[in-house]
Amino acid sequence: MERILQGFERAAGASPAIRFIDVMLRGAGQVMFMDNPLTGLFFVAAIVWGAFAVDAPLVALAGLLALAVATGTALVGGFDRASWRVGLYGYNALLTGLALGTFLAPGAMHFVFVVIAGAFSVVVSEAVGRFLKVHAVPGLTFGFVLTAWLFLLASHGFAGLPAGGLPTAVLPGGATVVASDPLAPGAFLAGVALSISQVFLKDSIIAALLFLAGLAVASLPAALLALAGAVIAVAVAHLAGAESDLVTGGLLGFSPVLTAVALGTVFGKPTPRGLAYAAFGTVVTVIAQAALNAGLAPFGLPALTMPFVLVTWLFLLARPAPAA
Amino acid sequence: MERILQGFERAAGASPAIRFIDVMLRGAGQVMFMDNPLTGLFFVAAIVWGAFAVDAPLVALAGLLALAVATGTALVGGFDRASWRVGLYGYNALLTGLALGTFLAPGAMHFVFVVIAGAFSVVVSEAVGRFLKVHAVPGLTFGFVLTAWLFLLASHGFAGLPAGGLPTAVLPGGATVVASDPLAPGAFLAGVALSISQVFLKDSIIAALLFLAGLAVASLPAALLALAGAVIAVAVAHLAGAESDLVTGGLLGFSPVLTAVALGTVFGKPTPRGLAYAAFGTVVTVIAQAALNAGLAPFGLPALTMPFVLVTWLFLLARPAPAA
Amino acid sequence: MERILQGFERAAGASPAIRFIDVMLRGAGQVMFMDNPLTGLFFVAAIVWGAFAVDAPLVALAGLLALAVATGTALVGGFDRASWRVGLYGYNALLTGLALGTFLAPGAMHFVFVVIAGAFSVVVSEAVGRFLKVHAVPGLTFGFVLTAWLFLLASHGFAGLPAGGLPTAVLPGGATVVASDPLAPGAFLAGVALSISQVFLKDSIIAALLFLAGLAVASLPAALLALAGAVIAVAVAHLAGAESDLVTGGLLGFSPVLTAVALGTVFGKPTPRGLAYAAFGTVVTVIAQAALNAGLAPFGLPALTMPFVLVTWLFLLARPAPAA
Repeated sequence: MERILQGFERAAGASPAIRFIDVMLRGAGQVMFMDNPLTGLFFVAAIVWGAFAVDAPLVALAGLLALAVATGTALVGGFDRASWRVGLYGYNALLTGLALGTFLAPGAMHFVFVVIAGAFSVVVSEAVGRFLKVHAVPGLTFGFVLTAWLFLLASHGFAGLPAGGLPTAVLPGGATVVASDPLAPGAFLAGVALSISQVFLKDSIIAALLFLAGLAVASLPAALLALAGAVIAVAVAHLAGAESDLVTGGLLGFSPVLTAVALGTVFGKPTPRGLAYAAFGTVVTVIAQAALNAGLAPFGLPALTMPFVLVTWLFLLARPAPAA
Repeated sequence: MERILQGFERAAGASPAIRFIDVMLRGAGQVMFMDNPLTGLFFVAAIVWGAFAVDAPLVALAGLLALAVATGTALVGGFDRASWRVGLYGYNALLTGLALGTFLAPGAMHFVFVVIAGAFSVVVSEAVGRFLKVHAVPGLTFGFVLTAWLFLLASHGFAGLPAGGLPTAVLPGGATVVASDPLAPGAFLAGVALSISQVFLKDSIIAALLFLAGLAVASLPAALLALAGAVIAVAVAHLAGAESDLVTGGLLGFSPVLTAVALGTVFGKPTPRGLAYAAFGTVVTVIAQAALNAGLAPFGLPALTMPFVLVTWLFLLARPAPAA
Repeated sequence: MERILQGFERAAGASPAIRFIDVMLRGAGQVMFMDNPLTGLFFVAAIVWGAFAVDAPLVALAGLLALAVATGTALVGGFDRASWRVGLYGYNALLTGLALGTFLAPGAMHFVFVVIAGAFSVVVSEAVGRFLKVHAVPGLTFGFVLTAWLFLLASHGFAGLPAGGLPTAVLPGGATVVASDPLAPGAFLAGVALSISQVFLKDSIIAALLFLAGLAVASLPAALLALAGAVIAVAVAHLAGAESDLVTGGLLGFSPVLTAVALGTVFGKPTPRGLAYAAFGTVVTVIAQAALNAGLAPFGLPALTMPFVLVTWLFLLARPAPAA
């Protein structure tokens, strides 16, 4: 594997086109914090598989288009070259494209908006990163969340951008939560797997395995933490009496998965203390997910990865200096 | 009185258990910015009285449980020991527990969430404090507001956490404001007293007197400013034509009470200029309370002390350097 | 023209009353970033004309009253004298007064609130400016937006402050966008002109010409960029299929106009690269306007100039250092 990566790196050094693809793949990998083109390749494969599995290839196209536009925008626009090289201008765009593809109806104007959103996500990511620099906290996927929310909301104002799959706006508290008890082992495992694939808005167990494999080739701890985060999320959500469809569909688990990886290994150390801190953050992310689902209901907006962003920001800011 | 406090301090120095209780009491006192265990004792008595007065002792239990959990979490978690000693990790947890007890239905799962919220409030308070440090502004009760909002909203997603007393979510502007004129002296005084007890989500005149007494033993200016803030709030709200039930129930006055104490003495000097600045902030807090009541209506969330937090942040940030 | 301004400056130096009027006029000019009393005079004339044109002179009165109160508050309150002299404490107040006059029903209590809002806007502007100083980003019109939103929302809680012209709160996504195609040249030009006059919440082509003239006397590039911003906004909004009434009424263009001027000349350089960056920001502001229109619908609040503030903050924060 090392050999393959070294060969690819040599090729990328010799050809701007291969370098561009290398940076795009790294951008895909950065959704899960991995600066690794092979990880990115697994992730792209999972995205494409997941999109075809639900007969929506245009969703994958929207994601990859936004990723390409962002990678090009950051290059041409004179943004920080070191950040560009490791894919840090790409991951928010990829997620933004996937979200626009998932929640809006496809069409020509749709792809124009995906292009604009891809380029804008570079500006947002850079702005957020610089704003938070003074606090020594990373922007995480907030660039994605803010860009996607703006474009999804804007669909209500433009006939050229119809809102295909957005949830209907409702006031919270109207529906009764239906929690089926107990959770069968198969449903539990499906919830765990889909909690991982839903990080990329994908609803596929095979995609989940590809995502895990992609993580594992770059970082085994990250893969284990993603899995642990998903297990915690499904267990906590179920015990608290969450709607079973949400639990087994992974819709309460994708943000906790990201929190577990971020706090447990990427921005923290997997010491016992650090892991306990990460586990607590993961539990709280499940609650934040339920909270933001309710809080965003009047806007008809999905929470996306905002629960992960909010909780991880708080836990990184609060981290006791010598301990965790 | 000095003698009692010194004796208690000696005992706390000798026994970790008494120190823990000392820090819990200081945490209660810090809701009104007082680093004083006797103040805290008065406050706890007022909370317990107010809870029993409306036949809801579990509300007081939820508050004290969250306070104990937060005090323990901050101790074990390695958070700043000096801040811990003066109760700065406790007050947000106490208020969070009281809010969860007030707005959610009691039950076993309920208390599990109170424990999680108590621990989480430590993380939030620390994160908010560090974020604002660069701006030389304190976190105030934002740790409470953010934690409580998240857990209250999350109740809509978990069958194990039913929302007992949350307001029904509505769009603003639908109801007609009923302002009865004139305001009888008794109603005015009730409004003033309950504006103070509602700082702790309590609806009791005797509790209000205990809160005032607790303030007075630590700082007479603080007690007078709390009273003045309540008088200003009730007068302004009534003159502006606010719903009479809200005015006389103290529900438009608890945030202004906190603003008056914060700007008038804790973070400002009671000079004529400083008091005028605090009075203006107090008036604006009444308006902010009405605004946030309307702005939070679609979420079915109470404003809690956010009007105080928002206005006091603005007034502290804007403070003209040499003057006020 | 230079001669007139010099004579006026001499007179202002000799008389505090004329200085006060000078600062008020500069405050009006600062709505479009111009530190120039003649620009301010044009703007005030446009505001008065626009108000009388729709038979609502009290709206202009509310704006000028808030401007006078803020100018006086900042002077007496000991705020930064240099900022005061160039009108930086005035523009948010003027806009706040115009917004309260436009969206609330007139009356005695109404003007009391305009006075409070005018003074409060000074505190908000100063607070926002200081908060953002560490990020080297200006407060723009956020002081106006925050103050106006608070007072508009508060109208739902006070019988003394009836909400005359506020939009009815609705959940987004309920209405169908009606985009009439094609856009006739006259409608296009009306949309461009009103996009400029709506910066001041005015719906008048003659007012638009006065605003442009006022800009031109201080800065021809600014006037041209305002015009270009309006053209871009109307074209983009129409192409995306926005509601025709909004497009031709200038209601999707006033924020983009401000973005174009801010990024193109005030806080940026009109190089090809800088203009391309400003043009992209202007396009994104149209999308942000549609987004915030939908996002604020549940509150029954107008977006005011928040789309401009949000996008310009992001673009200023993200600005690649040597390039744009």
